[in-house]
Amino acid sequence: MQAALYIGNKNFKITEVETVAPKADEVRLAVGYVGICGTDMHIYHGVMDERVAPPKTIGHEMSGTIVEIGEDVNDFSLGDEVVVRPLDYCDDCPACHSGHSHICHNLKFMGIDSPGAFQNFWTVKARTLHKLPKTVSLKQGALIEPLAVACHDVSRARLVAGEKAVIIGGGPIGQLVAQVAKSTGAEVLISEVNESRLDFAKANDILTVNPIEQDLAEYVSSWTEGKGADVVFEVSGVKQAIDAMTEIAAVRARICMVAIHSEKPAIDLFQFFWKELELLGARVYEHQDFEKAIELIAKKEIDIEPYITSVSDLTDIKQAFAQMSGNPQGLKALVSCQANI
Amino acid sequence: MQAALYIGNKNFKITEVETVAPKADEVRLAVGYVGICGTDMHIYHGVMDERVAPPKTIGHEMSGTIVEIGEDVNDFSLGDEVVVRPLDYCDDCPACHSGHSHICHNLKFMGIDSPGAFQNFWTVKARTLHKLPKTVSLKQGALIEPLAVACHDVSRARLVAGEKAVIIGGGPIGQLVAQVAKSTGAEVLISEVNESRLDFAKANDILTVNPIEQDLAEYVSSWTEGKGADVVFEVSGVKQAIDAMTEIAAVRARICMVAIHSEKPAIDLFQFFWKELELLGARVYEHQDFEKAIELIAKKEIDIEPYITSVSDLTDIKQAFAQMSGNPQGLKALVSCQANI
Repeated sequence: MQAALYIGNKNFKITEVETVAPKADEVRLAVGYVGICGTDMHIYHGVMDERVAPPKTIGHEMSGTIVEIGEDVNDFSLGDEVVVRPLDYCDDCPACHSGHSHICHNLKFMGIDSPGAFQNFWTVKARTLHKLPKTVSLKQGALIEPLAVACHDVSRARLVAGEKAVIIGGGPIGQLVAQVAKSTGAEVLISEVNESRLDFAKANDILTVNPIEQDLAEYVSSWTEGKGADVVFEVSGVKQAIDAMTEIAAVRARICMVAIHSEKPAIDLFQFFWKELELLGARVYEHQDFEKAIELIAKKEIDIEPYITSVSDLTDIKQAFAQMSGNPQGLKALVSCQANI
Repeated sequence: MQAALYIGNKNFKITEVETVAPKADEVRLAVGYVGICGTDMHIYHGVMDERVAPPKTIGHEMSGTIVEIGEDVNDFSLGDEVVVRPLDYCDDCPACHSGHSHICHNLKFMGIDSPGAFQNFWTVKARTLHKLPKTVSLKQGALIEPLAVACHDVSRARLVAGEKAVIIGGGPIGQLVAQVAKSTGAEVLISEVNESRLDFAKANDILTVNPIEQDLAEYVSSWTEGKGADVVFEVSGVKQAIDAMTEIAAVRARICMVAIHSEKPAIDLFQFFWKELELLGARVYEHQDFEKAIELIAKKEIDIEPYITSVSDLTDIKQAFAQMSGNPQGLKALVSCQANI
């Protein structure tokens, strides 16, 4: 079979490798489509080489079909279309013992810390699988993983119908958070400076504000009749958002930190005191977030098709990454990994 | 009657004033004891003069006896011993409408924004009152307000039996948070550098660590068998605590921000992401926190007497403040405000 190896320095090599037979608790998947994630772009740019240790097959936003099953796997059948929740947890640390295996102390992220999905076949533990119903295509399935991220964020924020949520940052995850938030019955506003992202949000019936053109705090105050936002999702990762998030928050608001701030930003703790704010860290997803994401697409509560910017062949993976790199406004590039059988 | 007027510049003046007859929804209290709060010390040092606008009678940690009742007040009787929850809210803002009147947009804090309790009689709205049972003395009653602060903090942190909580900072509020936390059935550790505060905690059966002598993160890791603290209370207000709080926190830990950081500290948001931490702002208290504080003393679950460092007469209020100012390790100085009838 063919596998794409990330070999460092913005480069991939397509190689011929042996398929991996599944162990007792594993299945072998014929990979359908794999999305290029922001993290994959970071890897492509070389900033995660120490962790990734190239050459390695990366990729984790995927869909596929079961073609071989380990002897102890009972819940799945040959031909099942599935997605993988790419978390390999130890089941034996304080986090796993507390029911938080998704943030296991020894978590390995499949496609980063171990081989990923940019290949014709991928052999994975059956416990990582979620079945796709017939109403979800393999193409749509490749977007379940990022949608599960958004489901997790909205769940962490405990957003409910009737509340007003502001999403700071309208990139791929911000747009998905807005859609999931809207599906709960909340009213949703995206704050974003990029016009094409603002247009995308508007085209998907999301209220928008450009904080360069309008004062965000004033806009939110007016939109919420002086109350402030019940929930704020910080998805932008920029410094201005750190100040804005506490400023636009209502008394007892929840601020869900979706962006990764590796620097330590100066946070207005006085606002946390004054308004009894709540800051919630959110990382990856849990089992129920994948099930929710599948349900949202299956029931057509979210139209995921507009998020797909392009579909490339596995042999063109290098160009696909280069294209995404040159077009940061593109939302989701898919790579078709289906073997030419 | 006599009232102590704060007149600015670390000075008080004892003056003779008329008692204030209660309006329909008010009562007049014969003040018993009033505690000197950290905020009162700030006022004494002049840093809050703009807000306080001296001359003004301050004081809000108090107990008293009802001596006169407004015509619309039905829930209280002459002779009832009570404490005042010193929050004057508007009942007509988004916070009040959401059930969070304790952080009302237009909150007036009695004894700061309006006259307080350092006088023989205090006339207040009946809705601010909580009845003291016979098992709680007026002296103990003056500590209900700071104990209610601690009850609120523990409630905000959702601490439950069997969890492990670290309190960073062993001042008066830190010690009370430790006692309330312990009363929930949690295991409690105070991190403090001052030896007399460490001794006080030990004498009250609280586990302690001095982070100058032992590495706090290592100590907590060992104490929790590698898990980290389920709950962290940041009560110290010092910069080192901001780093420590995320370092010692377990996966999915709650960090309750009790200290007021007026500067914007640099916070390790990566840890919030990595461990899905939660930061909870906490301000003053709610109705149920006062009821809980009264219950804890009434049922002798907390022995509050050791917290009382001194009792002065109202006429000696200036010396009482000066003494507290010179002895920052003292826990709670009371002022007896009882009229010489």
